[in-house]
Amino acid sequence: MKGRWAELRVGVVGAGGMGSRHARNLLGRGAAVVAVADSDPERARSLAEACGGARTYEDGAELVRDPDVEAVVVASPDPTHARYVLACLQAEKPVFCEKPLATTVQDAEEVVRRELACGRRLVQVGFQRRYDPEFRALRRAVEEGLVGRPVLFRAWHRNARAAHGPPGSNEAVIVNSAIHDLDELRWLAGAEVEVVHAVVGRSVDPSLGEGILDLQVMQLGLTGGALALVELNLSAGYGYEVGVEVVGDQGSLSAGLPSGVVARREGRCGVSVPGDWLARFEDAYAAEVASWVDTLRSGGPPWPHAWDGYAALVAARACAHALRTGGAVRLTAENPPPLYAA
Amino acid sequence: MKGRWAELRVGVVGAGGMGSRHARNLLGRGAAVVAVADSDPERARSLAEACGGARTYEDGAELVRDPDVEAVVVASPDPTHARYVLACLQAEKPVFCEKPLATTVQDAEEVVRRELACGRRLVQVGFQRRYDPEFRALRRAVEEGLVGRPVLFRAWHRNARAAHGPPGSNEAVIVNSAIHDLDELRWLAGAEVEVVHAVVGRSVDPSLGEGILDLQVMQLGLTGGALALVELNLSAGYGYEVGVEVVGDQGSLSAGLPSGVVARREGRCGVSVPGDWLARFEDAYAAEVASWVDTLRSGGPPWPHAWDGYAALVAARACAHALRTGGAVRLTAENPPPLYAA
Amino acid sequence: MKGRWAELRVGVVGAGGMGSRHARNLLGRGAAVVAVADSDPERARSLAEACGGARTYEDGAELVRDPDVEAVVVASPDPTHARYVLACLQAEKPVFCEKPLATTVQDAEEVVRRELACGRRLVQVGFQRRYDPEFRALRRAVEEGLVGRPVLFRAWHRNARAAHGPPGSNEAVIVNSAIHDLDELRWLAGAEVEVVHAVVGRSVDPSLGEGILDLQVMQLGLTGGALALVELNLSAGYGYEVGVEVVGDQGSLSAGLPSGVVARREGRCGVSVPGDWLARFEDAYAAEVASWVDTLRSGGPPWPHAWDGYAALVAARACAHALRTGGAVRLTAENPPPLYAA
Amino acid sequence: MKGRWAELRVGVVGAGGMGSRHARNLLGRGAAVVAVADSDPERARSLAEACGGARTYEDGAELVRDPDVEAVVVASPDPTHARYVLACLQAEKPVFCEKPLATTVQDAEEVVRRELACGRRLVQVGFQRRYDPEFRALRRAVEEGLVGRPVLFRAWHRNARAAHGPPGSNEAVIVNSAIHDLDELRWLAGAEVEVVHAVVGRSVDPSLGEGILDLQVMQLGLTGGALALVELNLSAGYGYEVGVEVVGDQGSLSAGLPSGVVARREGRCGVSVPGDWLARFEDAYAAEVASWVDTLRSGGPPWPHAWDGYAALVAARACAHALRTGGAVRLTAENPPPLYAA
Repeated sequence: MKGRWAELRVGVVGAGGMGSRHARNLLGRGAAVVAVADSDPERARSLAEACGGARTYEDGAELVRDPDVEAVVVASPDPTHARYVLACLQAEKPVFCEKPLATTVQDAEEVVRRELACGRRLVQVGFQRRYDPEFRALRRAVEEGLVGRPVLFRAWHRNARAAHGPPGSNEAVIVNSAIHDLDELRWLAGAEVEVVHAVVGRSVDPSLGEGILDLQVMQLGLTGGALALVELNLSAGYGYEVGVEVVGDQGSLSAGLPSGVVARREGRCGVSVPGDWLARFEDAYAAEVASWVDTLRSGGPPWPHAWDGYAALVAARACAHALRTGGAVRLTAENPPPLYAA
Repeated sequence: MKGRWAELRVGVVGAGGMGSRHARNLLGRGAAVVAVADSDPERARSLAEACGGARTYEDGAELVRDPDVEAVVVASPDPTHARYVLACLQAEKPVFCEKPLATTVQDAEEVVRRELACGRRLVQVGFQRRYDPEFRALRRAVEEGLVGRPVLFRAWHRNARAAHGPPGSNEAVIVNSAIHDLDELRWLAGAEVEVVHAVVGRSVDPSLGEGILDLQVMQLGLTGGALALVELNLSAGYGYEVGVEVVGDQGSLSAGLPSGVVARREGRCGVSVPGDWLARFEDAYAAEVASWVDTLRSGGPPWPHAWDGYAALVAARACAHALRTGGAVRLTAENPPPLYAA
Repeated sequence: MKGRWAELRVGVVGAGGMGSRHARNLLGRGAAVVAVADSDPERARSLAEACGGARTYEDGAELVRDPDVEAVVVASPDPTHARYVLACLQAEKPVFCEKPLATTVQDAEEVVRRELACGRRLVQVGFQRRYDPEFRALRRAVEEGLVGRPVLFRAWHRNARAAHGPPGSNEAVIVNSAIHDLDELRWLAGAEVEVVHAVVGRSVDPSLGEGILDLQVMQLGLTGGALALVELNLSAGYGYEVGVEVVGDQGSLSAGLPSGVVARREGRCGVSVPGDWLARFEDAYAAEVASWVDTLRSGGPPWPHAWDGYAALVAARACAHALRTGGAVRLTAENPPPLYAA
Repeated sequence: MKGRWAELRVGVVGAGGMGSRHARNLLGRGAAVVAVADSDPERARSLAEACGGARTYEDGAELVRDPDVEAVVVASPDPTHARYVLACLQAEKPVFCEKPLATTVQDAEEVVRRELACGRRLVQVGFQRRYDPEFRALRRAVEEGLVGRPVLFRAWHRNARAAHGPPGSNEAVIVNSAIHDLDELRWLAGAEVEVVHAVVGRSVDPSLGEGILDLQVMQLGLTGGALALVELNLSAGYGYEVGVEVVGDQGSLSAGLPSGVVARREGRCGVSVPGDWLARFEDAYAAEVASWVDTLRSGGPPWPHAWDGYAALVAARACAHALRTGGAVRLTAENPPPLYAA
């Protein structure tokens, strides 16, 4: 506990849904949002007002250079993430970047390279599941050996419907959505994807267009020998659900199963399923930003870090390749630089 | 969302477990703890340091008068609550008071009377269940008519073991513990306890001393006609669990059933039960304080209010009477003054 | 295991829903239904044919005297039960009688008296819950001390709607429906109802007529000191549910919570609730009849026995009295005759 | 309902655990066990006595020829199944054969060929899951379209430990154990395995010997386009669990999740997991034999039939091939002969 807070002065790049959410969570944590950037000036103005009168920019890079901005949140469209993160690194300002860190492996590598050059961790990536209380409790239980040695990680990731209209490509499905699951596996297993045995998909919702595989099943092998299964389902119909089961040689642990108020009605007994990730991960989004603010205040390194963003993207690209070719893909082992030691 | 926070300067009376918790939650919300009072100077000093160097007092009344203290948290022993709350009312300072608001009906009445004289709501009572996300979701569902007209409220309240050693009396069991359940019923039903049909108890844990009824079952009737059942169990053995089921003419809703990570181990499949109320209501404690801080900043009235504290105590005393006499007790209807309209 | 079955030749009195069900279960167990009696000859004939050509009677007493009938099932209207059971006792034929054993305490006493005169147990009462696998598993766990010493039994009994139209009286609600719960408590606790602290009711479904208390809550004390709560609810709206929780000083055990196929649909995740007791207790009805057949073949005593039928009725009448008078009722202790020792 | 039973006279080949269980279930259904065969005369005699004095044989083929034996249960070691089934077909006697129907595809083909020559279905295969109430309820719900069009079938099959010591080979793991899951998929999906995308395994329990893959994960494609995942786990440690989730485009349905009495004890709330398949499928084993007896009495065709036994074995062999080679395997489409139409 620290008694008096030095008010953190944050700039937000991207005034859409996630940008607004992060801004609200920053205010709830006692930080100030002093600047907002968006290519749509109206949207920028609207969020800036809601934040109590922040400055506005059309170009996020200008916001980054604003000397009154101490730290930056990047919540702009995916392909622009790397650009703003690199600008922050150049200005040596801490940055919280929504996932994915970048859309190409090259860009992610460049971020890592520049951060290494800075010599300290300035980047946090928005893998909010790592801040979900139930996922964290599961990880703790795994670490305590509650179910022995983990041998199988099974993840499911279901959207009611493809959220932002038809995905542009099957690769985009993986890089935008499955990347969450790949990061989750890396985090829970403390291991890397070593081999992609098979990625198989099928079309579920015909309205998404021919060839779009909105259901994908991934079979992976992790370093250390554990197996992993991922079900990525953009068209589950019934609601949004994200969960994981870790099977060990002495039992299993599951997080993410639907819970909450139990209703008995109309011949059924059960619980609600959230409609989307905003409802499901509301607390986790608040917690990742709270952690970021606290980290900046305490001087500790932010987490998850740029290497996490990079490694998840590498795994995602390997899965995309396996889906395209119908074959297995083996990944090259890489050790993270010491800067990214836990 | 407000952009910039005026830092709220809070004094904490009582540096024990709950006082420390509230202090931590205040800091996490961006408020400052500028003073701490405790009859044990060492304990006061320790919390003051953890809060970044607050002033210390031995007497809470002095802390209340400290002009740098804008608002006060009362977390001292129960019998002293009313005294500090009245001091705050005299100083016209907002006060967050742990439950119970007072230990005698007369004192609670006095608090209400003085607050009415102030002409505005300055008191919030620490009925933290009203800030539990699941209880709130249940109440919303009841209000939306999801299960029709409520006809039965069933509450259970179980401690693993009597928390602070043997309760002093069976009446203390009700005033200290069951008061939470009575407030919960009032809140969920939007009704008052009208009649106590029967309160029956039995001794479960012999080590608590002869005549101590650590299990009590209460059968109540509420204004509007709904029935209510309360199980208060200080010696449930297995853990801490607090829940409620609302039965309507079209179904039922339950909150508080154990949930979280599902573990399959050693021939069993299930979830953990928290050990005590601190673990169970960790988020609710943070949320009630966050709401208090936000309310003070926005100028809105605090909630739950002094009348809630008073009315719950009246119901608790009626239950205690019924337990003692073995008969039914009918309560006199009272309408809250307009200051306490929702 | 016995190798060859002597085919048991059974007569069924009452060709309605329960009579037909028992007949089918008898056939499924390898017994023969050789006679059917019903005051409605058409209904008797229809069931007789379904049973492969049994004889028919209009008067159940005649059926009982049929020398080809070795054993009798009584599933006629409640007020006639005692009459046919007494006829069986006179003929010294084993009889399976649907609950309640009788509708007056005098008649139930008379059955016990006559059976005692026979010197052996000939009567089994249709308290089918004792044959429900989950209730049995719960009882076993209680006996094994899994939750320590039981201190509270909480039973709930909910119908979607009053099943056969408006109940004739509030007393009938207890004698017809709550008698199941009272037997269940006696069985699970291995104890008798010692005191009825309070029975309180309220009208839920106005279409049942003024003054009909289709929701009743009972607060009981059992011999040995455990408390008990019963919720009897004829108008729960959502479906049929019967369950019990046994709270001990080291934990609790619950049976009867909705289970089965988990469906995720339309924003909900949950299980079905059966529509009525026929669906809920389908297996228990088959098992009680199978046990009866096996018992007759092996020469063992049937169970639950006439004393169970009598004692449950006595408790039901005490509850009805408490509901009527608004006060507590204390029961006189009675020890069952040695014939009814387990 | 048929009124009088013609007592069915059954011979049991194999007096071990499953043979004894089937015998007991036959007696419970009103059939007679008139002969028992086992290569161990002592074991045969013991079961024969328990069945009330059946004849005994050392050679199952002799039992099949016994003119007093109307129908045969084959529960001998797997490699002998086909031999006794073929003997029954030659004698034109109905036969209930434990899974697998045969251990080689050639033998299973031979059974089908001979049965086709008989012109009527005489063979039932012991895929008992098809008689599990919850699996059946799930299938019904799928057929009613409760979750739309099924797109993914996910099955899990977990033993606490390899049941009969180390499996002889990884292929045996599939043919003995996973064959249940493959039949289940065929039944639930109403489809055949069309392609085995990948079967990957790992060693969990080192005591089973090097190279034994006691955990296997199978990724399949079914005719009609649905995907399927199977987790076969011989060393799950915590107990025995078999379940399936069917994901459709409007939701999902799961059967087999642990259920039953809910115990709150020692900081946990949950249910028991059965120790093995005998406990888990006790009712299903009784039901498949009851159905067999009823079918023989009514003249209806037995089910699941020889083609089911054959097709499951073909799929199992394809999975074994995929595991061995590390690649995908595509199966040749076969239409079942009209004799095996539902």
